[in-house]
This record gives sequence, structure tokens and C-alpha cells, in this order.
Amino acid sequence: MSMAARKFGLGCGILPTGAKNAITDVPGVRVGHCTLKDGDVNTGVTAILPHGGNMFRSKVLAACDVINGFGKSVGLVQVKELGTLETPIVLTNTLSVGTCATALIRDAVAANPDIGRETSTVNPVVGECNDGPLNDIQALSIAEEHVRIALANATDGDVSEGNVGAGTGMSCFGFKGGIGTSSRLLRLDKREFHLGVLVLSNFGRAGDLVLPDGRRADPRGGKEPEKGSIMIVLATDVPMEQRQLGRVTRRCGAGIARLGAFWGHGSGDIAIGFSTAIRIDHDENRDFIPQTALNEDRIDLLFRAATEATQEAILNSLCSAETMTGRSGRTRRSLADWLADEMR
Amino acid sequence: MSMAARKFGLGCGILPTGAKNAITDVPGVRVGHCTLKDGDVNTGVTAILPHGGNMFRSKVLAACDVINGFGKSVGLVQVKELGTLETPIVLTNTLSVGTCATALIRDAVAANPDIGRETSTVNPVVGECNDGPLNDIQALSIAEEHVRIALANATDGDVSEGNVGAGTGMSCFGFKGGIGTSSRLLRLDKREFHLGVLVLSNFGRAGDLVLPDGRRADPRGGKEPEKGSIMIVLATDVPMEQRQLGRVTRRCGAGIARLGAFWGHGSGDIAIGFSTAIRIDHDENRDFIPQTALNEDRIDLLFRAATEATQEAILNSLCSAETMTGRSGRTRRSLADWLADEMR
Amino acid sequence: MSMAARKFGLGCGILPTGAKNAITDVPGVRVGHCTLKDGDVNTGVTAILPHGGNMFRSKVLAACDVINGFGKSVGLVQVKELGTLETPIVLTNTLSVGTCATALIRDAVAANPDIGRETSTVNPVVGECNDGPLNDIQALSIAEEHVRIALANATDGDVSEGNVGAGTGMSCFGFKGGIGTSSRLLRLDKREFHLGVLVLSNFGRAGDLVLPDGRRADPRGGKEPEKGSIMIVLATDVPMEQRQLGRVTRRCGAGIARLGAFWGHGSGDIAIGFSTAIRIDHDENRDFIPQTALNEDRIDLLFRAATEATQEAILNSLCSAETMTGRSGRTRRSLADWLADEMR
Amino acid sequence: MSMAARKFGLGCGILPTGAKNAITDVPGVRVGHCTLKDGDVNTGVTAILPHGGNMFRSKVLAACDVINGFGKSVGLVQVKELGTLETPIVLTNTLSVGTCATALIRDAVAANPDIGRETSTVNPVVGECNDGPLNDIQALSIAEEHVRIALANATDGDVSEGNVGAGTGMSCFGFKGGIGTSSRLLRLDKREFHLGVLVLSNFGRAGDLVLPDGRRADPRGGKEPEKGSIMIVLATDVPMEQRQLGRVTRRCGAGIARLGAFWGHGSGDIAIGFSTAIRIDHDENRDFIPQTALNEDRIDLLFRAATEATQEAILNSLCSAETMTGRSGRTRRSLADWLADEMR
Repeated sequence: MSMAARKFGLGCGILPTGAKNAITDVPGVRVGHCTLKDGDVNTGVTAILPHGGNMFRSKVLAACDVINGFGKSVGLVQVKELGTLETPIVLTNTLSVGTCATALIRDAVAANPDIGRETSTVNPVVGECNDGPLNDIQALSIAEEHVRIALANATDGDVSEGNVGAGTGMSCFGFKGGIGTSSRLLRLDKREFHLGVLVLSNFGRAGDLVLPDGRRADPRGGKEPEKGSIMIVLATDVPMEQRQLGRVTRRCGAGIARLGAFWGHGSGDIAIGFSTAIRIDHDENRDFIPQTALNEDRIDLLFRAATEATQEAILNSLCSAETMTGRSGRTRRSLADWLADEMR
Repeated sequence: MSMAARKFGLGCGILPTGAKNAITDVPGVRVGHCTLKDGDVNTGVTAILPHGGNMFRSKVLAACDVINGFGKSVGLVQVKELGTLETPIVLTNTLSVGTCATALIRDAVAANPDIGRETSTVNPVVGECNDGPLNDIQALSIAEEHVRIALANATDGDVSEGNVGAGTGMSCFGFKGGIGTSSRLLRLDKREFHLGVLVLSNFGRAGDLVLPDGRRADPRGGKEPEKGSIMIVLATDVPMEQRQLGRVTRRCGAGIARLGAFWGHGSGDIAIGFSTAIRIDHDENRDFIPQTALNEDRIDLLFRAATEATQEAILNSLCSAETMTGRSGRTRRSLADWLADEMR
Repeated sequence: MSMAARKFGLGCGILPTGAKNAITDVPGVRVGHCTLKDGDVNTGVTAILPHGGNMFRSKVLAACDVINGFGKSVGLVQVKELGTLETPIVLTNTLSVGTCATALIRDAVAANPDIGRETSTVNPVVGECNDGPLNDIQALSIAEEHVRIALANATDGDVSEGNVGAGTGMSCFGFKGGIGTSSRLLRLDKREFHLGVLVLSNFGRAGDLVLPDGRRADPRGGKEPEKGSIMIVLATDVPMEQRQLGRVTRRCGAGIARLGAFWGHGSGDIAIGFSTAIRIDHDENRDFIPQTALNEDRIDLLFRAATEATQEAILNSLCSAETMTGRSGRTRRSLADWLADEMR
Repeated sequence: MSMAARKFGLGCGILPTGAKNAITDVPGVRVGHCTLKDGDVNTGVTAILPHGGNMFRSKVLAACDVINGFGKSVGLVQVKELGTLETPIVLTNTLSVGTCATALIRDAVAANPDIGRETSTVNPVVGECNDGPLNDIQALSIAEEHVRIALANATDGDVSEGNVGAGTGMSCFGFKGGIGTSSRLLRLDKREFHLGVLVLSNFGRAGDLVLPDGRRADPRGGKEPEKGSIMIVLATDVPMEQRQLGRVTRRCGAGIARLGAFWGHGSGDIAIGFSTAIRIDHDENRDFIPQTALNEDRIDLLFRAATEATQEAILNSLCSAETMTGRSGRTRRSLADWLADEMR
């Protein structure tokens, strides 16, 4: 169970977490990493799989929200128009989005030989942040093979956080950033549901971080402008309409703001949400499809969960990431170390 | 049955029309007008009612598309966010939107005494065009009473077209514009469905109108810039998701473009769509609601219907409207007269 | 100078305030109120004037951001399309938007007799929140005259806050809400500029308010769902492009989130921004117009100012509003009282 | 000069064309192709360069409009947020967008060694259509080298149209599609300006094409659903605000609709516009930048030009493309042949 922030008393909000406090609390969701650490190379790939089957044939409902569009994500236009996700979501460094997109395309074609021939083409979804400060991003170290490794590593257990996968070389509020996750348990219709968030945190100016208890956490690093980004992946097993999922996904931005950020100019802040409860069959042949919508009067529960889980997932990324010295000797300190110092 | 354009061989597209070739082919939809003609006053109100019950308690699925936003419509923000329509749609002249909104509010409060007290407030939806050239728009002649008359006049029979209701003083492509309607019959899941459009036409520069047969129709009026607008109301009984309805509604803009317009700067071109097949109960107490979505691979049928019906509804408005001399002796000629001249 | 929150040590952020810590720190901006208090009637009108001249002839650059669209604001469609504001902004209760729009139209026509005749029509901008819990909103007490009074009362001095104007009957986080304002002083190009915010606060569930020092402030009222709204008006004298102003205006949402809200379902959270530094002449006859854009790399300064000023304006509204017992004996407590109790 | 459509009397609209009737009439704009034809491989790359310098250091104003988002274009999110284009625009087949993005990134890094290190990362812009019916798209034949060839081939002279570059294997309205271009000459402020369009046409159901003279052109091919796309690149040397450029770019959709299409479900219809008159210096160090906006009352001229040039560019693509037999013996006939038959 992800306790990185809670160990320091930095849990967020009032809703109960899922069993793992992770995006993998949503049944079927799996996460895998491929980490590259070699000299000045500190980067990687993180893959989020909504389910274990063929994503192209059995799509899931999806939505996205561009909080601040200084980013190079691939695939959002079609997600917005059609409301579906038909590949895993892959996160990586900014200059590797093209390679990762090609890897997803190649995988989809291999599994679905009718793509681009008897049926439509496939829409790869790739998110990114710039790990340039700690990683030699110009080396374009990510190859298609690394995407395949991340996909193969995917499990539905606890999620590795901090300096792993795409998070390897990221920075956040002047501290070391990276991968973080959190989840909330929801009760609707007398049953249990889940909403989980995974973040790739790489945003925020040093000195701006505000902890849930009101403390400002400053690594005493330079006051560089925000040139990072944050990618947020939200998963849920609550069934709903696409418009509703869009509203829920938008609330991730509130979770970021609660930590003291203002969605800085140079930060590509993008949230992608999906619901495993709504599957769209690529080969559907009925004219009409029975679906389930959420009573809109219950949606505040999901808004709250999205906000809390995003805030806590970011704190988990910060508290899990270890101090790293990367490219050209630049160092980003661990928030966990800073917090430990404070407690002395 | 609306034959105004077809009488001149100007039917549009390839799909069959509904029995009335009118928005009222969608079961339950009613239209009513209140017309004011008195000296320089040539204006009115047109009301479209999605069903005969209490709209606030039993909302219908809705979407809108702002083709060009030089317009003063009321209520679109909430339609976009929540995807529902909870009052009739009222059309009128530009400076009367406030009065019509208040009339809809007063009606809703009278029928639902819990509004703004035990429950939320109500979102009136009002569309408008500027009939200033033929109507003394500064007189603010529309009173709340006129909205009530239009509502009371509503019927599900043939729709009066041309110089009636909100269309009384409108101009279009230099000709006399006004109210027009058209519909298409759809076959899905072995049943019949309908898509109907009603327009308030008041757009287009004289000389730009292109008829479906390629002829340019020019009233030889002045070459004034587009300072009008078009309001398009689309109704259907096809069940679908809100995102899908948004996509269908967006195709009304293609119908306008086929007539030679380019969505001119000064023209508020706005489409509002609703589906009577999806009702949203204001007092819903279940957490989840069964709904019906359209197989997205069938949506081209609705796209085509929306485009064709919009194009033909505009032509019906032009062919129904009679030549009028309005404020300060300005005249707008009937396209029907121009077409009759051509045939000689 | 607005010190309502700072008196309690609740100032927000790190930028210096303007001299008045008010939206009126932006040169030329004026604010006026009209307050109605009579038995169950607790409501009013607040007007924000970007400059003292004829707004229709000399428009200002404007943008808006719909944070959550459960709201009935009037005029946003055209603001988004054309990027201009051509009337004052008027705030009121939800059911009075129609009347206020008509009042703005009538005023504009009186000052500009060519409206709707020789030139285009006018786009009134009206924002609203639902003061139903404390005000008999169904009485529709606001008349056009009240708009004129608010406009006539406008001054560029300190802004009255709390239970005044449109804020008279508002509630926020279970406390008494209302009007609040704050500003930030900016230094660009070796000169001083200003960014000011005025809010009409009426959002937030009781128990969710988080103060800048991390404390949760709970009035121990009922845990009612968010059914309110917040209207945010942002003014600046920094020149920029319309796209840039849109980005700045969007950051008001971050200021709300910092206080613990998550942009609740039933809350119409809407921000309207304008820059007095960019005037658009209605009668412009040049083809090209020299303008001034902001270096985008400087925009974080404005993002930060918008976030801080929004957060503090809300706190000022809460700390200024006095405890009120309104319609049917319902009471909303003052946050100032709660804070005073805490300090004992 | 592009006369492909005009040879058949199919010129569009009323504005005069530029000297070449091509996007290269906009001073500085260059176009280059790389064509791959080998057995079942019929595909390629087309590059559009806004100017001859370093695009990353000297960006141009840009906007985009997603007419129908069933598409996989790369880079639009940042174009929308920041309003700039900082690489050439590259068009290719759907499954090759990743490779082309990587090629643009590698080129930008080579020319700007500070990318991702001392300065921000670069946003490659790549558009695509699915040439699957005539090309073995699964072969992923496009390599980074082909992008470099297209860039190296770029000239500011007449533009090769039809079965070249990205257009090699495209289909449109059941005919052979591909690359087409057209331009309009504009007069503003007593000077000459230009607006040019280049399309990659691959959309439209067989039987739906309507020629400007009202004739329907049907290749008598199968009635397959729209599964194509159209990419539209609009260039101009008229200076304006980003919001204005967005409005102009949106009008490309009207040009498509005039040909009988309704922006079909399976068609990724996307327009990207740029103005060479507004340069954004990556290394700008002034706080404020003088710019030039267009008088909004003159914008109809550009709306008309965008609509006309898009319509004619598509017809030019259709009239230039030669009949091709591609993958698995599928044939797409030339519209020019069909028109020649009609004239007999």
C-alpha cells in the first residue's frame, strides 16, 4: 500500500483510500515500468493498461482535460472526439513521444491485422514530461523495445513509485519528482467502487510547494521558472457518460492547485481519465447499446475523490523519490529527506 | 407538409423526409409562434417544446454548437456542462433575450415552487437574431406575455414558416428570411426514427446564396456585410450519449455552408440540439441510470440528416417568407418571387 | 484598503498588493452596489465598470473561463468569440439575469442610438449566484432601476465588501459569503502594473474550507451539497493578446481550489477577465491596429497574481460578511466571528 | 499556376487568386515532397515551411481547428495553448506520425543544441490521413530520412499536386485524392496580401461530391463509409491576433462542406493555420512586444478567402491526381478523367 506521504502525516482529504492506495485498486488496471539509468541517461517508460485484453477490440470510455497545454502529448484529439481509449497509456520523456507512439502502433497492428486495411487505424496515447535537467534528453535513449518492456512488466499489485519508469529523471517543486499514485474507495448503489490516480510529477517552482498542513517546503534550490509538466492518469470502475467522465477528469487540476502550483506557463499539465466500466466493442453490430450513466447528483463524490487522489499521488511521488544527482552533476533532493530534517 | 423549397425543385440531399418535413415529425415536439406586426414593429417569439410535460422535472438530453459566437443566446453554458434542457427553447430578436429569459424563469417557478429554494435554479434557453433592418428593435416590443402566447400556441402539426413568430422581421442572403423547418426519416434497429430542424434565418450576404442546383440567387440588393445570425434547433428521437448529440448538432454548420455562406463575422450562428429519447428525471434517486447509446458507426446517418435538414430548413424559410416592407420603408424580397421570375 | 483577511493573518501568496488591495487598484476601474434588504428579500446588484467612458464605443479586451458551467451567466459566448467587453459587468442573483441584461441593453441603446440600426447590437454581460437560502429569490425583486443605481454608485475608491450589492444574501463554505476583492502589484518593463479580482462568493460545502495556514474552518452547519456558485471578475492594466488574457483568467480556478473546494457539481464557477490596456474602437476605420502583446515568458507573474488575488478576495468576502439571518430564519455565520472565537 | 480545377471551369468563389494559385503565393512559404512508390507501397511525406530560417528561434503565429477529431495529428495541444508553430508542418500517413515527429525533433535539436537543456523542448507538428486502401500502411515504410528529403526538396515555386508526397496513396469521394493547393489575393491597407491553402485530401463518400456547378460526381465505386480524413494547412501574410487566426482557420470547414461532405464520423478533418506576419522570437527579452491586429470588421475577407481556397484546393487535388491502382489491385479513378468523359 502506498504510504509514502501518509508516513509523514500528509494524507489528503476525507475519503477512505483503496486497499493499495494505488491506481491498481481499480480492478483490472495494471502498471509497468521500464527504467533507464546509465551515466547521464536517467529516463524511462511507464505504461498504464486499463485491462488485460485487446484494447483495440475492447476500448474503454475515456476523456481528457488540458489544464495547461504547453505539452506534446499524443492522441488527445481523438480521445476528446470519440471518448475512447484503444491502446494502453504510455508515459515517457518529451522527446520520445514519437518513438513510443510508433511502438504502440506496431503492437496494435500485430494484435489486429485488420488495422488500416479492413478497419480504421489506431490512436496511440502517449504523455510526457521534460526530464532534461537530470537526463540527457537529447540522446533520445528510449527505443520501441523499452515500451514493450514496460508493457510486459505490468502488474495489478502495488505500484513502484518515485525514480522509476518515466519518473526516473523528473523534478517537482525543486525536489526530486517522479511516479506517484493514490486511490479512493467510493460507495454507490450499495456497492464499492474505486477511483485511482497515477501521476508523473515534474512541475512546480522551488519554494511554492504547500503541504496539506500549511507548511511551505522549499529545497533551497534556485528559483527557476516552471518548465516542467505533470501527466495525470485517472482510472475508475464507476460507470458513467463520457461528458461526466470529462467533468471528473477536470478535477485533477484542483488537486494540483492545492499544492501551491498555479499551472505554470511552461508546464504541460494534462489529465487523461478512463472508466473500465464502459467498454466499447470495436466490432459492435447492434445499432443501439445499453449503457449506464451516473446520477449527476452523485458526481461530487467523484470530484472529491479525483481532487484528493491527485493531490496525494503527487505527494507520494515526492516522498517516494530518492535524492538523485543526474546529468552534469545536477542534484534534486528528496522531499522525504527534507521532511525527516524538519522532524528533528 | 413543408414543401416551400421542394415546390421549386430545391429539396436537399438523399434521405427521405418525415411526414410533415418538419421538426414536429419528432414525436412530442411542438412549435408555437407569437407574431407582432404594427407599423415599424415586425418581430415576435417562436417557442420549441421538446415534450408536453414539465420540462424542469423531466429534462431532455441537449447539446449545442457555437459555429460563430457573435450572438447573445442565453443558457448555452449550462447546456454544455450538464447536457440537459430544462425549459422550452425560445427564439426572439436580439434585444429581447432578457425579457424572454425572465418569462421562462417565471413559468418554471410557477410550475415548480421548489426552484431556488429546496432545489436548484432553472436555466432558461433563449436564442436570437437581429431583425433591426425591418423591425424597430430599439422599441423592445417583446413582453413576457408574448412568450406565454407562443408557448400556448404550440402544436405538433405543420409548422408555420416564413414571416411568423421570431421570423417576422428577419433577412437572409438579401432576401426575406424567417422561420423554416425540415426533417429526415431514419431507419435504425429496424424501427423508424426522426431528425428535425427548425431555423430562424437571418444571415448571409446578398449575392452569396447558392441553390442546390448550382444557381446563384441575388436579390440585387446592396452588398451589405453579414450582420445577421442563424439559430438552429435540432430535435431527434434517436437515443444517444451527450457527446454523440454534440457531434450531430455540429453538422448543422455544414448545412449552412452548402448554401454559400462562410459563417460571417457579424453572424451569430448557433445550433442547439436535443434528443427526446433521453429523459433526465430531476428527482432521480437511483445512483445509476440505464441509458441507450448509439453505435458510433451508425452516426454518419444522423450527420447526413442534420446537414440536409438544416440546408432545406433554410431554403424553406426563404421560400415561405413573403416580400416585406418594414421599418423606414426598407424592403426584403421573397426568394419565391425571384424563383418564379427565373422560371418565366 | 481591504484588510479583512489580513487582519487575521490570512493574506495569500508572496506578491505585494495594490494600494487598496482591491480591483479598483487597476486605474479607471470602478465598482458600485445596490443592496436590497427587506424582510425575506436579501439580494442586490454589483456593477464593475472597466472605464468611465462609453463602453460600447470603446470596448476593452476580455476573456472568460468556465470552471464549472452549472450557471446562467449571460454574454459569455460573444466574449469568447470576439474577445471584447462592451458593457459593464453586472452581478446579481440567478433569477434576475434577464432583467439585468435588459437594463444593460436599454442603457447602451440610450447612449448609442445606432445600436441595432446602423450598427450591430450590444452584448450585455451578467453573472449570477443563487442566494436562495437567505433571499426570497422567487420574488424576482431586482428591477432594471437597481442596475442603474449600482452603476450610478460606482466609484474607484475602496470597495465595500461582504453583505452588499449582489453579495447581500450569499453563502460560502457554510459561512456568510458575498463580495470580496484583492489585488496584486506587478512590475514589468520597469513600470508598475496591477491585477485585481472581485468575487461574488457563494460556493463550497460546510467543512471543506481550508485556510492558508492549513486550518479547516467549519461553521458546524449542515453538510449540504454545493449548490452555490462563484463569479470572479479579473481586471488588469497589463496589455496582452486575447489568448494570453484567457490563460490568465483560467488561473482564478486555482485560487478557488486552494481553499479546499473542488469546483462542485452544483456550483457555477465562472471567471471573466478584462484588460483596460487594450481598447477596441467600435468605429475603427484603419485596416490594421497596432497592439501590444506580453512576452509569454513573463506570464507566470500574472498567473501567480490571478491565483493569489482570487484566493484572498474570497477570504476577504468571508471575513467581511457579517452573520445574517435571512429567509425563513436561516442563519449563516461570519467567518470573522469564527476566527475571533478561535483566537480566544 | 495551379489550374487543375479551373481547366474544367471549376474555380471557386469570387476573389482573385494569387499568381501561382498556391500556398507558396504567401511570401516565404515553401513546400517539399518525398514520394514512395514501390509495389504495394504508395505513400510519402509533404512538408510545409512557413519561412526559410530557424523555426524554433523564430516561431510564427498559429492556430488550429479540429473539424472532426477522428485523427492522430501530433502537436495541436500546444499550438492551441501558445499560438505558435516552431517546426515545419509535416503531412504523412496515419501510422507514420510517430516517426515524422521524431524526425522533426531530431532536426530541431541539431539546429538548437539548447533544446531540453538550457531552454524548453520542441513541439513537432504532424498531420496525417489513412492511405490504407491504396498503400500497405502496415509496412510503416516512412523513415526519418524521408522527412529530411521532403524538407530538402522544399521550394517556393509552383506546388506539385495530386499523387505526390503524403498524397501519393490518398482517396477522396471515391476518386483518387492527394495534394492540392489554391490561394486568394487580398487587398488591405492599400497593399496586397495573400491567403493560401494546401490540402491532403482523403475524405468523402463516393457519390457525395458536388461540383461548384451543382453536378454530382460519382465514380461508380462502392458506397463505402467515410474512413478517410483531410488535413488543411492555411498560410497567410496578413498580421492579426491569434484569436482572429483561429476564426479564419475555422472557415476551412465551410470549404469542405460546400463540396457535399458533412465531416463524416471516420474522417479526421483538421485545419492548421499560420501567419508569417507575426513572428515570435524564442529569445525575446523585452517584456512587451509591439504587434499588429486586424480590424475585426475586415475579417470577412479572410473568411471568404479561407472557404474559397479550401474548396478549390480540394478540387485541384482531385483534378491533379491521376488514376492509380494500388495495394491488392484496388483502383481509384481520376476526377479529371471523369470530367473529360462528361464533356464528350
